[in-house]
Amino acid sequence: MKRTKNAVVGQSGGPTAAINATLAGVISGAMECGFIDTIYGAFNGIQGILEDRTVPLNQIFSDKDALMLLKQTPAAALGSCRKKLPLPDSDDADDVYGKIFDFFKSKEIGYFFYIGGNDSMDTVAKLSSYAEKKGICDVHFIGVPKTIDCDLCGTSHTPGYGSAAKYIATTMQEILRDTAVYTVKAVTIVEIMGRDAGWLTAAAALPRILSSTAPDYVYLPEAIFDTESFFHDIEKAFEKHPNVVIAVSEGIRGSDGKYVGESAQSGVSDAFGHRYLQGTAKSLELAVKEHFGCKVRSVELNLPQRCAAHMLSATDIEESFGVGRAAVYHSAEESGVMICYRRHDLPYSVDFVTSPVMDIANGIRKVPAGFITKEGNNVTDECLEYIKPLILGEIDLVFENGIPKHFSF
Amino acid sequence: MKRTKNAVVGQSGGPTAAINATLAGVISGAMECGFIDTIYGAFNGIQGILEDRTVPLNQIFSDKDALMLLKQTPAAALGSCRKKLPLPDSDDADDVYGKIFDFFKSKEIGYFFYIGGNDSMDTVAKLSSYAEKKGICDVHFIGVPKTIDCDLCGTSHTPGYGSAAKYIATTMQEILRDTAVYTVKAVTIVEIMGRDAGWLTAAAALPRILSSTAPDYVYLPEAIFDTESFFHDIEKAFEKHPNVVIAVSEGIRGSDGKYVGESAQSGVSDAFGHRYLQGTAKSLELAVKEHFGCKVRSVELNLPQRCAAHMLSATDIEESFGVGRAAVYHSAEESGVMICYRRHDLPYSVDFVTSPVMDIANGIRKVPAGFITKEGNNVTDECLEYIKPLILGEIDLVFENGIPKHFSF
Repeated sequence: MKRTKNAVVGQSGGPTAAINATLAGVISGAMECGFIDTIYGAFNGIQGILEDRTVPLNQIFSDKDALMLLKQTPAAALGSCRKKLPLPDSDDADDVYGKIFDFFKSKEIGYFFYIGGNDSMDTVAKLSSYAEKKGICDVHFIGVPKTIDCDLCGTSHTPGYGSAAKYIATTMQEILRDTAVYTVKAVTIVEIMGRDAGWLTAAAALPRILSSTAPDYVYLPEAIFDTESFFHDIEKAFEKHPNVVIAVSEGIRGSDGKYVGESAQSGVSDAFGHRYLQGTAKSLELAVKEHFGCKVRSVELNLPQRCAAHMLSATDIEESFGVGRAAVYHSAEESGVMICYRRHDLPYSVDFVTSPVMDIANGIRKVPAGFITKEGNNVTDECLEYIKPLILGEIDLVFENGIPKHFSF
Repeated sequence: MKRTKNAVVGQSGGPTAAINATLAGVISGAMECGFIDTIYGAFNGIQGILEDRTVPLNQIFSDKDALMLLKQTPAAALGSCRKKLPLPDSDDADDVYGKIFDFFKSKEIGYFFYIGGNDSMDTVAKLSSYAEKKGICDVHFIGVPKTIDCDLCGTSHTPGYGSAAKYIATTMQEILRDTAVYTVKAVTIVEIMGRDAGWLTAAAALPRILSSTAPDYVYLPEAIFDTESFFHDIEKAFEKHPNVVIAVSEGIRGSDGKYVGESAQSGVSDAFGHRYLQGTAKSLELAVKEHFGCKVRSVELNLPQRCAAHMLSATDIEESFGVGRAAVYHSAEESGVMICYRRHDLPYSVDFVTSPVMDIANGIRKVPAGFITKEGNNVTDECLEYIKPLILGEIDLVFENGIPKHFSF
């Protein structure tokens, strides 16, 4: 019989409304699988392992209510980090990795689960490669996907995307109702997250197939943005109605490759070299105001689009929970892999497969050209039909005192 | 027996998530009261009456499902306007008022219901005063309150405020979870609507009494804003934790009476002479970044706070519906009045009373000094306990295809 070992789980990267559902899935799987004794939570991801800040989770979550609350709590309950590990063959590697593997040894860790996006898969890939280099094979490294951006390779979509897309579609429908009340000419520009991929912004067009209203245009980073065509588009929309509503990705760029919001950039970069963008919609607001002289408003959906756990997609939350459980079961025999969704249609369903984490760490899954209109100013119905199943179903949230109840350590 | 007449209802001013619940209440009351034959809806408020754009509502809403959907639909279903009527004794008065009263005559209107805020009550007051001046007494003019700002005089609170406050408290709790995941020093500044009164911003502090988290500071327009004290407040918060979260009203001003966001103002004024403010949080973001050199983010809750009908307060929606019905019943004997909430506590309840619309049109009900801390950088628990009953209860929304279903004409 296989000897049981302990496990550790961490969360990393930007918050989502579903990352804790995946944590709940890992905890639930670990407590049921039979080959894990204690499941530890590492605070602030790999940082918590380096600093020995962990908590045993079994007892806390033997209470089913706590597990249920965790599933409806947004943002990483264990905290997150943006730490980038050095290359496994770099000079300072042994110092950092030594600490991590000492932790694994002292806590008798056999399974490491890391819930995160692109950058977190980079961490899993490096740990896995360092272990291989050192001939350490008694720890299995499993990546568990998470990102509202839906741009991870290897998986048909990502845990957290469905809820973010549902929130965006819902909010967009409300903004469309709001802006339609006046008869005065006005343009409303809604900025949605997405540096490199337009999946979230595409969701803003969902009301077109779901209800009786739709934004006039949707501009994604996958299509080159041209200001003159943009003005021309607005002119055409004004021929139909006085209230023009537009969704733009924060990451739209001109033919020179520069971000539209670049002039307003803070110039600050994070540990992974990403520049913080700001003001794409604001830049366009000023340009439209100057060109048309009409009322213009920009709305940045900002943080709520990634943490609005009051508008969860039941499909997303159940899949996010499921991928966490699948991670545990796959960890028995595999390492250096990320758990992926494999989507089936007619009827819609997903199952869980694995993909080498090396192949995932640095790729980006963009919105395919066939999902964008020829003019590059909208998404196709096919795109929206593809997204639709991911936002379906509602979670019956637990409220307390008028607001949703959250879990916290 | 009293002769039945027709009625017309219009909506005016900025959208809320509850203004259609009040419309539903007026329609429901009109269809049941026995003294109204046809209830007409005027598109775009008084503008629709001037242009004879109206719709009979009885048949559409004899369908109970339509009435229920209307209650969960945000923003004025009939459309809105920001038209300011001339003074009843001005030179061009007869031209404009003549058209309106011709409409009343041709449609046999005996009851005029106008759902709106301050500026809409100005319209009701003028119509009422013009009618009196001309000795017209067969039309009754009734104002029905609406504003997320909660700053109308004469009423203990306003229809729409409870839902906006619930959305703000919920979103604030989520932003607090989101910003807490990292260990790096950061300041998040959340800007909330409220030019003159801080009721909405006060709601951002609700998580303090409702859950385990709270913003560090809350700055309202009622307290003078001082940048040096603000920096000092942030320093003190950093002593406790790395993630500082602050809520500010768009309308906060310095001791010179200037808006903090004034430098970033668009300079555009609406028909009522209000200047559009923008960038209060953005201005503070830049100031904090310069002073502390840390990561700073500003989040403007923007349009969603006034149209987020996916997070309705059941208390607010039932009261908003009730005030619409009360308007109809009071219209039998009264004119030139607004229907007001009169609040009772222990246990909480409201009943409906009337107040002369003249007294309401131009006043502003501010957050009382006793609800703001001595330092002027937060609200008291007493303030939060006052707001709490208004956000209680959830509406079991009808969803279709993954997003809430709305009514539209």
